[in-house]
Amino acid sequence: MALFLVRMTVELPADLDPGQRKELLDSESEYSQRLQRSGRWRHLWRVAGRFGNVSVFDAADNDELHAMLWDLPLFPYLSLEITPLSAHPSRIPFDEIAFND
Amino acid sequence: MALFLVRMTVELPADLDPGQRKELLDSESEYSQRLQRSGRWRHLWRVAGRFGNVSVFDAADNDELHAMLWDLPLFPYLSLEITPLSAHPSRIPFDEIAFND
Amino acid sequence: MALFLVRMTVELPADLDPGQRKELLDSESEYSQRLQRSGRWRHLWRVAGRFGNVSVFDAADNDELHAMLWDLPLFPYLSLEITPLSAHPSRIPFDEIAFND
Amino acid sequence: MALFLVRMTVELPADLDPGQRKELLDSESEYSQRLQRSGRWRHLWRVAGRFGNVSVFDAADNDELHAMLWDLPLFPYLSLEITPLSAHPSRIPFDEIAFND
Amino acid sequence: MALFLVRMTVELPADLDPGQRKELLDSESEYSQRLQRSGRWRHLWRVAGRFGNVSVFDAADNDELHAMLWDLPLFPYLSLEITPLSAHPSRIPFDEIAFND
Amino acid sequence: MALFLVRMTVELPADLDPGQRKELLDSESEYSQRLQRSGRWRHLWRVAGRFGNVSVFDAADNDELHAMLWDLPLFPYLSLEITPLSAHPSRIPFDEIAFND
Amino acid sequence: MALFLVRMTVELPADLDPGQRKELLDSESEYSQRLQRSGRWRHLWRVAGRFGNVSVFDAADNDELHAMLWDLPLFPYLSLEITPLSAHPSRIPFDEIAFND
Amino acid sequence: MALFLVRMTVELPADLDPGQRKELLDSESEYSQRLQRSGRWRHLWRVAGRFGNVSVFDAADNDELHAMLWDLPLFPYLSLEITPLSAHPSRIPFDEIAFND
Amino acid sequence: MALFLVRMTVELPADLDPGQRKELLDSESEYSQRLQRSGRWRHLWRVAGRFGNVSVFDAADNDELHAMLWDLPLFPYLSLEITPLSAHPSRIPFDEIAFND
Amino acid sequence: MALFLVRMTVELPADLDPGQRKELLDSESEYSQRLQRSGRWRHLWRVAGRFGNVSVFDAADNDELHAMLWDLPLFPYLSLEITPLSAHPSRIPFDEIAFND
Repeated sequence: MALFLVRMTVELPADLDPGQRKELLDSESEYSQRLQRSGRWRHLWRVAGRFGNVSVFDAADNDELHAMLWDLPLFPYLSLEITPLSAHPSRIPFDEIAFND
Repeated sequence: MALFLVRMTVELPADLDPGQRKELLDSESEYSQRLQRSGRWRHLWRVAGRFGNVSVFDAADNDELHAMLWDLPLFPYLSLEITPLSAHPSRIPFDEIAFND
Repeated sequence: MALFLVRMTVELPADLDPGQRKELLDSESEYSQRLQRSGRWRHLWRVAGRFGNVSVFDAADNDELHAMLWDLPLFPYLSLEITPLSAHPSRIPFDEIAFND
Repeated sequence: MALFLVRMTVELPADLDPGQRKELLDSESEYSQRLQRSGRWRHLWRVAGRFGNVSVFDAADNDELHAMLWDLPLFPYLSLEITPLSAHPSRIPFDEIAFND
Repeated sequence: MALFLVRMTVELPADLDPGQRKELLDSESEYSQRLQRSGRWRHLWRVAGRFGNVSVFDAADNDELHAMLWDLPLFPYLSLEITPLSAHPSRIPFDEIAFND
Repeated sequence: MALFLVRMTVELPADLDPGQRKELLDSESEYSQRLQRSGRWRHLWRVAGRFGNVSVFDAADNDELHAMLWDLPLFPYLSLEITPLSAHPSRIPFDEIAFND
Repeated sequence: MALFLVRMTVELPADLDPGQRKELLDSESEYSQRLQRSGRWRHLWRVAGRFGNVSVFDAADNDELHAMLWDLPLFPYLSLEITPLSAHPSRIPFDEIAFND
Repeated sequence: MALFLVRMTVELPADLDPGQRKELLDSESEYSQRLQRSGRWRHLWRVAGRFGNVSVFDAADNDELHAMLWDLPLFPYLSLEITPLSAHPSRIPFDEIAFND
Repeated sequence: MALFLVRMTVELPADLDPGQRKELLDSESEYSQRLQRSGRWRHLWRVAGRFGNVSVFDAADNDELHAMLWDLPLFPYLSLEITPLSAHPSRIPFDEIAFND
Repeated sequence: MALFLVRMTVELPADLDPGQRKELLDSESEYSQRLQRSGRWRHLWRVAGRFGNVSVFDAADNDELHAMLWDLPLFPYLSLEITPLSAHPSRIPFDEIAFND
């Protein structure tokens, strides 16, 4: 498995039909939550003051990462920045962290 | 509490004394692990192929964030990029995630 | 509480209906003044020669900052640049300043 | 009078003599506080996670602004970004603000 | 008084109605010449090969500078870059220059 | 004759010998004033808050422009940005301007 | 005479009427060839893989350069980058070159 | 054969030994003139106001281009920007040009 | 023969007619496969998370490279970045590689 | 397995001891050839006119990619740009390519 930092910025046209806009955002949310439940979309934060997010994906390989991002309902309106992550030697074991988010 | 994405890039001089270099990196690692155990340094990943990391800090406020970063032993050799994060409306509750890193 | 420098640049479409434009700018102004009176929007300056401003917000945390910016009537037409601020050690006490703006 | 947003980034050489470094920073702090008391250096905030600050200067004109910045003890080690500010039409009167920093 | 270097780039939509375009450019030219005669718009040069100019404005303060630029008929189609200028210590007195443009 | 906007930024090494530094700056000033008197260096302004200037040169052609800049005593320490200027159609005749700098 | 390197990038709207497009490109080609024959447009190369070119113009002065570029039929659809050139001291005399393009 | 636009910027250390500097520049000039005579280094212009040049190389292929540039005596001090050129459809035949540089 | 790294980014308008879109992408795919079979389009990879690719072309010269790219059905919607490649001295002979993609 | 495009730029100090330089480059070459033989370093091209290369790595995951790059003898002198690749739907089967580099 491999982790990737993904920064998404949403650029919806200002004149998009409100109904179509709601539908897009609803299906995006549903898609995102399905991937979160599966453990593939590991973290999801809003960037404060922006229409966008910072996420961490966990993919079997680059092909699976691409498939997950390509299928995002908002994909045609996203600009995506991707950073491959790896294990950090100073990272402490998971059960030593006071972890609660 | 507030979360911040922090991207650190290390730029150590190529001619740094090896002993001084080791000492710096050891104290950085120890400092980092202390903050991780306290729950303040929530995530730490190596950027693949770079001398640097992507981290998520959890701070009481901007002053505490600044104090934690300013005291990093490597601070004089770091370039830091900071992004304030907030809760994302599509984020699922913590106990619904298959979470294991 | 935490302070944030926010730089806003307005990009209204040149062909926006004048009535809609006036309504947008009026509600933006009203929204801004309400937040100024509450003490949340601490400073507001016009950038000379630009359609935009430099502001300082005072927020309980990143979530509150995001909510305030997301609700700006002009939000879909703004590009926002956000810098978290903290206390400066050389800052003199408030009552020693000849302060009058 | 005219206001200017000034963003300063400090770039001290890593091998600067500690005594010389302390002397520089002390005289910078003293110089800054003198200008703050005079009302010329109106605001001073630390940029969280950076060796630098965001400031607002109040100068009679561009010549006075230049003189104040040129005389900064740290001037040879600063990179400065300057934005002329003007009054914003949505700014509320000073005595209507709950102002306390 | 304070001088400002202002670099203007014009970005008129390619499909702008020719009559409206001519009217805009005529009123821009008239506005510019009125400010030149008043001594406020001190220099005006075409940037070779560009639809734009390099200008020097002389304003009482930042507020007056902003008002002059904001009222440009082409303002909604301009991108503006502003640099505050001050006196240079090597500048020779005006009457010693062989000055003829 | 042709006019060129030249923006110069000075980057002197922080550890330059003070005597050598003074000599360099004195010869630069003398060189600049000789070109100003000849009418070749038409305008010279300090960029407020920067070690640098904005200038307008008047040269017979690009070769003469290059020769004047190449011979600047500070040339090895300058970064130069050059913009060829031409006559602007809205420029009013010289004797109609209230011109006094 | 003065030489200028000019890099042109063409940005025609994708939905331009094909007839209008052909007319524009034909008149551009004719205009270019007339200037080439006059010796003013000295070199013209296609940038491989781009809709654009690298050219060298020979102009009496900046005003003539501006006039030649301003009158390009494609001017409203071009982004132009201009570099003033001068004689290089290592350039060998013209008749010593095996010159054949 | 293939043409390449090559833009070279020279960044010699300010403290380079003057003898070594002269030797470097002399061998660079000699090397350049040999390639010019062979017809490989087709054009060479000084960028006005810069320590650098704009050149056009004519190489059998990318390997030969690389070999010519790699062997430049100044190579370790150059930053190089390379643009592959191809024939432009509007280029007129060579013998129709009033060509004289 | 010469190799070129070509990075293509596709920017199709969001409101393109679905039928026209499918036709474009089908002809692009067919064109690409024909060039791959001929050995001219040597490598083709999807950039993970992007609508675009990284490719290596093998062309007789810059003119042939330009012709292949100019004729891409998607050319009007592509932004292209081209890097000329040459042989690397550390490259091992082809038959020593465990090569299997 | 996952493929990554890696672009390496070498920045060796100009005053590096020649012996140390040769040793570094020799061990880099040896290291590179070992990884090429193992099939991990799949492609290696020189960027024409640059001290650097374009490579394709084949790694089990991001951790293995990081380990291979981190251990490069030249790592402290490299700037690295990494792009995760995935399979392209228009890619033809390997045995249909006239493949010979």
